[in-house]
Amino acid sequence: MKFLSELKTLSQQIKFPQRIDITAGFKNIVIAGMGGSGIVGKIFAEIYNKVPVTVVSGYEIPSFVDSQTLFIAISYSGNTEETLSAFEKAEKNKAQMVAITSGGSLADKDCYVVRVPPGLQPRSAIGYMFMPLYNAFFQPSKEDIDKTESILKELDDNHQVERSIANEIYNGNRFPVIMSSNPFSAVGYRWRTQFNENSKIMAMNSDFPELNHNETMPLKLSYSLDKLYFIAIRPDDKRIERRMQATQRITGQNFRIIDLIGDTTLQRIFYAIHVGDYISYELALLRGVDPTDVSLIEELKRLLRQ
Amino acid sequence: MKFLSELKTLSQQIKFPQRIDITAGFKNIVIAGMGGSGIVGKIFAEIYNKVPVTVVSGYEIPSFVDSQTLFIAISYSGNTEETLSAFEKAEKNKAQMVAITSGGSLADKDCYVVRVPPGLQPRSAIGYMFMPLYNAFFQPSKEDIDKTESILKELDDNHQVERSIANEIYNGNRFPVIMSSNPFSAVGYRWRTQFNENSKIMAMNSDFPELNHNETMPLKLSYSLDKLYFIAIRPDDKRIERRMQATQRITGQNFRIIDLIGDTTLQRIFYAIHVGDYISYELALLRGVDPTDVSLIEELKRLLRQ
Repeated sequence: MKFLSELKTLSQQIKFPQRIDITAGFKNIVIAGMGGSGIVGKIFAEIYNKVPVTVVSGYEIPSFVDSQTLFIAISYSGNTEETLSAFEKAEKNKAQMVAITSGGSLADKDCYVVRVPPGLQPRSAIGYMFMPLYNAFFQPSKEDIDKTESILKELDDNHQVERSIANEIYNGNRFPVIMSSNPFSAVGYRWRTQFNENSKIMAMNSDFPELNHNETMPLKLSYSLDKLYFIAIRPDDKRIERRMQATQRITGQNFRIIDLIGDTTLQRIFYAIHVGDYISYELALLRGVDPTDVSLIEELKRLLRQ
Repeated sequence: MKFLSELKTLSQQIKFPQRIDITAGFKNIVIAGMGGSGIVGKIFAEIYNKVPVTVVSGYEIPSFVDSQTLFIAISYSGNTEETLSAFEKAEKNKAQMVAITSGGSLADKDCYVVRVPPGLQPRSAIGYMFMPLYNAFFQPSKEDIDKTESILKELDDNHQVERSIANEIYNGNRFPVIMSSNPFSAVGYRWRTQFNENSKIMAMNSDFPELNHNETMPLKLSYSLDKLYFIAIRPDDKRIERRMQATQRITGQNFRIIDLIGDTTLQRIFYAIHVGDYISYELALLRGVDPTDVSLIEELKRLLRQ
């Protein structure tokens, strides 16, 4: 199965040694990217906060972008229309330009280009696109990388739990409601988009503590609750853990809770990502849909080029 | 009906003349707030981009916050636990502190405090909390304010269309899927939370063009699509309008499209906000739930204080 072998490359991607060049100095970072490439910026923005990090998912860039901005364009294909548009605007504003791509127009740009291995679905190449950022800003130890690799491999070898969760979602044709919290909020969004792309189902995601300010009432009182499947990533922060427990108690909703494995942020984030990969993959199998099928997106692009 | 009279104050809130002090100069802005108060920062961050604006919805602040950060804490009650925590951390980092509140602990802080009129649900006071920011950074003309007021009043007098949309959502007990785009992405999130809080139903929101990179396949192939109601805010950007049209065509989904009224960003944003207010309010009436009921949230706070 092609897609399964793609998923299994993640443990190797973690060892991708490239890093972007950050020696020039900058006062803010802007990361442009869409979909399976854009998620890389969203995850990074949640964990790096020594300078403001702004994530752009569209054609335009903020007007503050200037020569003291580190602008990082991420597009696996290298041909994403919105990202190329943002790139050109940032170049015009004289930002310090970096590109992370496997090819396409982006690879030919006159700037610091990190080339990542081609041939995967963009969303399956998340490790290749993420590590050049993480290596540059966080300098993970070899031990950390090795441990992340082994955690991911274990999941490749055994994802029975993920299969059973997929089954629970599938029984009742339910929409997953993913509940996460910092530093896993963007991972919650990644899960949502993996359900969208792999399983071809709609899904929603929310964050603690924000969801306590709006979704708490409907968790008990909404109609059609039997059409939802609540799945929470166990919070690292004890205050948030208490909120999650209290939310379950007062709404009477029992969330399926995912306990993360790993001692470091890198390990836990990638474990969390890969759990979502497997649940959405197993759900695709149950539904009999092809997780690699992106025909409508291709059709859309054709239509837009006309 | 108490809630209806609250909704009708929005046209007056627009005329709230206060403005925060931005004369000291700053290199970035961080806005802290949760739920009905936090949405103010999210909307502002989407339209102001002369410096990086970071929105915080939790206890922690980014480590870059320093004396050159303008830190704006927004809490209608003035007692929001997460926002007070973020405030204290920013104060410790010597940020330039501003508070927007109707009272509580926040009103007693030793900083520039904008006091807004008390007595409303936080989410109904969005105009009072937003205008002190908008007035300071955008200096709207009297004509713009007056026009916004009259657009909102018209909606107060006639929201038949919003009632019929509420009916369509209610028939089939469907979850709204709100599709928006810049500069109305945060408004899409506002709609979602108004469905949560007023109508007591779960809802989801997405943005163009990002949704074209993940939700396009499930728009056609997901199960349980009869449980969703797709509603799109008409994009201002012609490229995004084309995407929306193409998305409808290839997925076969017919979105209910909301055409915005108004000539300026202020007018269009507040018109869009108020349309969502009325749809969610009318849906509450249809369901026979009290739009002002926040009993579970109060219960949660009690439980967390134990």
